[in-house]
Amino acid sequence: MLRTHTCGDLRQEHVGQTVTLSGWVQRTRDKGALLYLDLRDRYGITQVVFEQGVEAEQLREQARELGREFVVSVTGRVAERYSKNANLPTGDVEIRPETLTVLNPAKLPPFLIEDETDGGDEARMKYRYLDLRRNPVRRNLELRHRLAQSVRRYLDGQGFLEVETPVLIKSTPEGARDFVVPSRMNPGQFYALPQSPQTFKQLLMVSGFDRYFQIVKCFRDEDLRADRQPEFTQIDCEMAFVEQEDILQTFEGLTRQLFIEVKGFDPGEFPRMTYADAMRRYGSDKPDTRFAMEFVELNEVAQGQGFPVFDNAELVVGINANTCASFTRKQLDELTDFVKRPQVGATGLVYARVEPDGTVKSSVDKFYAQEVLQQWKEAFGANPGDLLLILAGPADKTRKALNELRLEMGQRLGLRNKEDFRPLWVLDFPLLEYNEEDGRHYAMHHPFTSPKPEDVPLLDTKPGEVRANAYDLVINGTEIGGGSIRIHDRGVQARMFELLGFSPEEAEAQFGFLLNAFEYGAPPHGGIAFGFDRLCSMFGGADSIRDFIAFPKNNSGRDVMIDSPSEISAAQLKELSIDTKVEAGK
Amino acid sequence: MLRTHTCGDLRQEHVGQTVTLSGWVQRTRDKGALLYLDLRDRYGITQVVFEQGVEAEQLREQARELGREFVVSVTGRVAERYSKNANLPTGDVEIRPETLTVLNPAKLPPFLIEDETDGGDEARMKYRYLDLRRNPVRRNLELRHRLAQSVRRYLDGQGFLEVETPVLIKSTPEGARDFVVPSRMNPGQFYALPQSPQTFKQLLMVSGFDRYFQIVKCFRDEDLRADRQPEFTQIDCEMAFVEQEDILQTFEGLTRQLFIEVKGFDPGEFPRMTYADAMRRYGSDKPDTRFAMEFVELNEVAQGQGFPVFDNAELVVGINANTCASFTRKQLDELTDFVKRPQVGATGLVYARVEPDGTVKSSVDKFYAQEVLQQWKEAFGANPGDLLLILAGPADKTRKALNELRLEMGQRLGLRNKEDFRPLWVLDFPLLEYNEEDGRHYAMHHPFTSPKPEDVPLLDTKPGEVRANAYDLVINGTEIGGGSIRIHDRGVQARMFELLGFSPEEAEAQFGFLLNAFEYGAPPHGGIAFGFDRLCSMFGGADSIRDFIAFPKNNSGRDVMIDSPSEISAAQLKELSIDTKVEAGK
Repeated sequence: MLRTHTCGDLRQEHVGQTVTLSGWVQRTRDKGALLYLDLRDRYGITQVVFEQGVEAEQLREQARELGREFVVSVTGRVAERYSKNANLPTGDVEIRPETLTVLNPAKLPPFLIEDETDGGDEARMKYRYLDLRRNPVRRNLELRHRLAQSVRRYLDGQGFLEVETPVLIKSTPEGARDFVVPSRMNPGQFYALPQSPQTFKQLLMVSGFDRYFQIVKCFRDEDLRADRQPEFTQIDCEMAFVEQEDILQTFEGLTRQLFIEVKGFDPGEFPRMTYADAMRRYGSDKPDTRFAMEFVELNEVAQGQGFPVFDNAELVVGINANTCASFTRKQLDELTDFVKRPQVGATGLVYARVEPDGTVKSSVDKFYAQEVLQQWKEAFGANPGDLLLILAGPADKTRKALNELRLEMGQRLGLRNKEDFRPLWVLDFPLLEYNEEDGRHYAMHHPFTSPKPEDVPLLDTKPGEVRANAYDLVINGTEIGGGSIRIHDRGVQARMFELLGFSPEEAEAQFGFLLNAFEYGAPPHGGIAFGFDRLCSMFGGADSIRDFIAFPKNNSGRDVMIDSPSEISAAQLKELSIDTKVEAGK
Repeated sequence: MLRTHTCGDLRQEHVGQTVTLSGWVQRTRDKGALLYLDLRDRYGITQVVFEQGVEAEQLREQARELGREFVVSVTGRVAERYSKNANLPTGDVEIRPETLTVLNPAKLPPFLIEDETDGGDEARMKYRYLDLRRNPVRRNLELRHRLAQSVRRYLDGQGFLEVETPVLIKSTPEGARDFVVPSRMNPGQFYALPQSPQTFKQLLMVSGFDRYFQIVKCFRDEDLRADRQPEFTQIDCEMAFVEQEDILQTFEGLTRQLFIEVKGFDPGEFPRMTYADAMRRYGSDKPDTRFAMEFVELNEVAQGQGFPVFDNAELVVGINANTCASFTRKQLDELTDFVKRPQVGATGLVYARVEPDGTVKSSVDKFYAQEVLQQWKEAFGANPGDLLLILAGPADKTRKALNELRLEMGQRLGLRNKEDFRPLWVLDFPLLEYNEEDGRHYAMHHPFTSPKPEDVPLLDTKPGEVRANAYDLVINGTEIGGGSIRIHDRGVQARMFELLGFSPEEAEAQFGFLLNAFEYGAPPHGGIAFGFDRLCSMFGGADSIRDFIAFPKNNSGRDVMIDSPSEISAAQLKELSIDTKVEAGK
């Protein structure tokens, strides 16, 4: 037996017992007569003490030789400490060792295995197995485990069956780029890795499985922006014989249980907002509702007063940054620079302060009489000390820019506390998005999303205005989940493919199995998928998903620890009936 | 709301309530004045009755038009049945409908959606979504769900963390063929899909995760023999600071819990047998211990009597087929043909019956005196009515053939009851297997398996005799799980790679990350992996894994439902910097 207890187990009640612990050397401290060894494992740290004249000198000598991260086993008696450490669960006791065995020595790690490490990103990725020893990283993965267990418990309790869908599937032209896998047994042909199990879960509904879920890896071969991974994990769910309301209830229940079980509080009923409202009030389909600062439209009170920037704008819109009238010139210049960044996209920023006496002073005073400015104040419901920030321009672009400014202000004002969780359902998404560049419509969610029945007549006349039975779960400005009621009628599905530019032949070749399945008795159904990596990082109070994934890839899609991807042998290529064809310069 | 209850919910206590059910038309029966509709969903079947003069004629007309597998919704009152059906949980009641809505019509299915279907394998695979509607197939997947939930509950309770390891990893030359994935961002390079998360779980032990598990898809690009799938699922586990005994205890506990929770009985403590004993007593490293019929070695009593086949054989070995003395000539000829099949490989079969009077009559009477035959009888512990079946030849080959014959006899005698479960640990596997063809050793388990400490000196002298700290869990003659204590010392691991024919450079290129990890404080560790598909089919009392997988592939690795693998576009190939190169005739 390599241990009788873990390094987190021992308490006052164990005093007097002889125990064996195994773990890593966190550190040794040689205080002359007393030599301390802190022994660490996943469960905690236990102090081992080697006292001059008490423990054998040969044991003390052995202990002195230990380096950081050596793996050792200690057998000894549990003793009460002279000076207890209230910060450590095992702080009441220490081990008086009888034997000390080095199970494996360790080279000096390339960075400190401490909560605050001196390791850079690159070293931490290359030696990921050492980075994972650090408490904060390990705790993230423990949190992930607990969340997954809780998800499964809830869904099992609700009658959902976890069904594994295949990983080797078929490439489809819709959506993001597929990863593909050459088939040795079918030369010249390829499998694709799933971007989601969408069609399979719908087939399971056609099969009468009624309630399906899966925590499942999905794959997208996209250029990796910060915090995207080529392989990611979804909580994927589908239900038959349901309407939107059934789904919202079920998964609000799931999300609340996760908060209760893992975070220890119930966030209560989730508010709901239509997509149109979210865009109008926050300029975003995933508003951060931890703080108000809602958009106020000013066309009526700001136009026709001779200020050309506002007069010529499709939309004049602003936010009230409460209590920010004291912002300095420098701060206001920073905000102006912020909104002018290409990724924000505004051309300028107008501001107005409400003075202690209630008068308004704006950056465009020369165009606006105080009387008009008072109308602005009223529109914002502003009070002395408030700062009004106003943008103008094309409606969509301006709302998008003001959303960025709102988030920036929320950040500056400390209104985006990571331990404050505000879930929100966003409903009634548009079915289609028009792409100016190639003059066609794309599915906003995916091609299987059903239009709202009352909007179906618009499909032929104004497809851009058709609303979908689609919904997102947003928490703190991040999309955590999204789904829809699906099409279950072959005719509607075929019409949808047509709108998306598929010829009937292409639709048949790609999705014939699904269209056929709809002819054999498909029930009404719908579902949702949660981004599990994102959910974990949100619950963990972090911005990045990377430290919630045991072995992540870097921004070039490489695993620098195992050095993958890598070249394969000519024999392998030949067996697979493929050849590499690397262009010069690549 | 599309339903208030499922088709399995309603009982006597619901009589008088108005309910809405939705489901599939199992069948309609028009009995003149009474017209019945059986409505089916995952949860059961409920009868709807349309009575002349009670239900509106227009409703009866609607019901008459319904075809099999139409999806309908029925609202009506729950009524007590005149003639109850005790075989149906809902058999006390029926629905007197008020409205009937067709949610989706259905074409006639290509095969019967009944427990016994008329569908052939090919049709069932192509229309898998219809096959999955059949109770036996759906129940298999429900069983799979329950097993997975139970596994997770047990391991979570034992402190194991489920950690997802990557799917896009690195190709290695060892083991089976890898599936590979061309990397678009790293032209000319490939990821590989994991054959198992072996190295990652070992790294998690180096990371101090202490107890890891994962229910995870693995991939092997092998020629598919019957009942192999290119993607399959493992329960993958690893523990640190353990010896073999700790692992056997932990996973015996898991397996017993699965039996208790899912099959409703405790199989008790698992017996253990060494590999050497298993080979000697059963000619197999996975003996079916539901029945005895152990091997009896006869060299002493059968050689030196002038029968050249026995005299020249390395091994003469037999089994006692109790009570089979009455086998006819025809049956014995069948057995002789059986052992001579190439996949069995014996050259002939000798048999001997024990007559009612205790004398022995054998097929080789002319070489053996009754006195010698009585010695055979004694060796077998045989009684009147027994049939002794004897093979002779090279030891390994003969044991292998007798194993096949033993299993065949067990089958014929009905001793292999699928609801009788006999788990067994097989221990002390050889570390290496020698391959005559290429004159080198291969790892019997995998290159990370540790030799038994006492056998380490043999590594340099007689590597073929080194035993490993490796174990298999066998149930009813099927390997359900296997694992080992791993090497955690860089030097031993490097020596192992050397024995397996890796140059130091190759070892470094392929497994450098693991060898390095071992230098930074690797704890002793070991683990096990269970074949989850196989476990499910065993618990389900089936021989094949295919119907325990929702969407399996056929023997050419094709998914005939979605028609995958398939060709991809020239643009995709170009982006991936690869070309197909299909040889003529393929």
